[in-house]
Amino acid sequence: MKTLWLENNKIDVRDVPQPQKPKEALVKIRKAGICSTDLELVKGYYPYTGILGHEFVGEVVKADDASWIGQRVVGEINAVCGGCEQCLNERPTHCEHRTVLGIVNRDGVFAEFTQLPIANLHRVPASVPDGMAVFTEPLAAALEIQEQISIKPGNRVLLVGAGRLGQLIAQTLALTGCDLRVVARHPRQQDLLTARGIRLINEADVQKWRWDVVVEATGSPSGFALARRAIRPRGTLVLKSTYKGEMSVDFSSIVVDEINIIGSRCGPFEPALRLMEERRVDPTVLIDAEYPLAEVIKAFERAAQPGALKVVVNL
Amino acid sequence: MKTLWLENNKIDVRDVPQPQKPKEALVKIRKAGICSTDLELVKGYYPYTGILGHEFVGEVVKADDASWIGQRVVGEINAVCGGCEQCLNERPTHCEHRTVLGIVNRDGVFAEFTQLPIANLHRVPASVPDGMAVFTEPLAAALEIQEQISIKPGNRVLLVGAGRLGQLIAQTLALTGCDLRVVARHPRQQDLLTARGIRLINEADVQKWRWDVVVEATGSPSGFALARRAIRPRGTLVLKSTYKGEMSVDFSSIVVDEINIIGSRCGPFEPALRLMEERRVDPTVLIDAEYPLAEVIKAFERAAQPGALKVVVNL
Repeated sequence: MKTLWLENNKIDVRDVPQPQKPKEALVKIRKAGICSTDLELVKGYYPYTGILGHEFVGEVVKADDASWIGQRVVGEINAVCGGCEQCLNERPTHCEHRTVLGIVNRDGVFAEFTQLPIANLHRVPASVPDGMAVFTEPLAAALEIQEQISIKPGNRVLLVGAGRLGQLIAQTLALTGCDLRVVARHPRQQDLLTARGIRLINEADVQKWRWDVVVEATGSPSGFALARRAIRPRGTLVLKSTYKGEMSVDFSSIVVDEINIIGSRCGPFEPALRLMEERRVDPTVLIDAEYPLAEVIKAFERAAQPGALKVVVNL
Repeated sequence: MKTLWLENNKIDVRDVPQPQKPKEALVKIRKAGICSTDLELVKGYYPYTGILGHEFVGEVVKADDASWIGQRVVGEINAVCGGCEQCLNERPTHCEHRTVLGIVNRDGVFAEFTQLPIANLHRVPASVPDGMAVFTEPLAAALEIQEQISIKPGNRVLLVGAGRLGQLIAQTLALTGCDLRVVARHPRQQDLLTARGIRLINEADVQKWRWDVVVEATGSPSGFALARRAIRPRGTLVLKSTYKGEMSVDFSSIVVDEINIIGSRCGPFEPALRLMEERRVDPTVLIDAEYPLAEVIKAFERAAQPGALKVVVNL
């Protein structure tokens, strides 16, 4: 089958045998999305060799439990052992022996087929089209913030960064009733937010020490610095992006101001599907371009352009 | 009056006029404790000129409200404006215009007399002797951890560092019923903990990814690194010490492991006094030595020795 293969920081379209692990469902991919993590993997931030991609919607074509065959599905990306301390303590996304779709020791979804344990699959409601369902994974990641901390309607919340993930975070945070402002650099990012009634703020207007919650979604040291400046004493700073290498931070000021810093990663799929089914969020506005798998290299180039939002690969 | 004066990284005993701000209580100091922050101020980590010291027990000798006169008191160190956003939102210790006793723009307590607003004072129960009451401020700081996060009896808690503050943290955490282990480097630190039935753990035996809560109380990058290694995914890392300069940290791993890092500073005085009154903690075991104010320089030298615990200055 045709795939997008990553090896030694280079991607190419490669023919590999169809996967055939016993016990796992075989999913025919319909659409797959390019995420910032994919771009970072190509840059070599993390070591990975294999088929890239972890955001998808597809159709089950083979499964031990026949009731799944023919179902349109999305899938959680962490395949877990079920027996380690993290799994046994209800933290399966932190399984100590996990493989991660298209990221850690598990072939991904820029391919005609992928495999996942049935436990990872979620049926897609009929009213959620493929072009929306392909956003389930990043939308779930956005919702992880609200799994971790309580966003109160009275909170002043600042979101720094309005890229692929930032847009979804903005859409979900806006539903909480909180007083949300977003720092967005690119005009298209700004327009999408404004169109949904989400208010922007210029970096220069962000007051120091005034925000109850700040979500950092740029993954850049300058974004972190802005977020750190903005957060009020005893406020919560959510880190929603990874950072290249180490970052030098004044931890004494974090102690003095009693700041709460919390890392945030994968989130819950069912609420993400529910919010899309109810049309309370609309991730499809993020789609910049769609390409067939044969042009996936072009798709990656497009996704790497500054300010680019979602690029979708059709299979 | 005689004081310990800090200027340009040098301390000396100096005669200065008795303080006489209107509206503030005048307190005759009985005992004052040397804290790591005092030693850091002398090293020049933070800029400060004036009388050092913020841990004390004393007697009110002058106050607008005569009912305070003659009372034995301890005092909260942050003198606040009452009108800023932090004060108005019940975060007075984070007042944006605060002065801090012996630390920020307010003369401290290594002196015959000090002044504080009456609102900062707490009466000391008769059964709490001076040598115990002088620990109220650092004991309150230890209790701040439990004001910020819930320590559950079922939690596995690691405390890294068993110095002046670490010992008090160990004593208070041990009361929660949690499964506590302490990394203590110096034999005397270890003996004090063991004598209270608090269990030690060797640095080499600290398992990675297994601790629900880790309290870092060394203020050193190596202590932070150990704490970071130990904390489980989604665990809480409490920073209870300040750090010299900036510290370089791998924030991506904090995002991936969804770690919660929380800075912790000043805490509640009344619970500290209560726990001492009920003899549930005994900070007096920490006292290494006592000196008269005339020998305060010698007291500081003693407090700066590796592994030193509390040195008290008598007035």
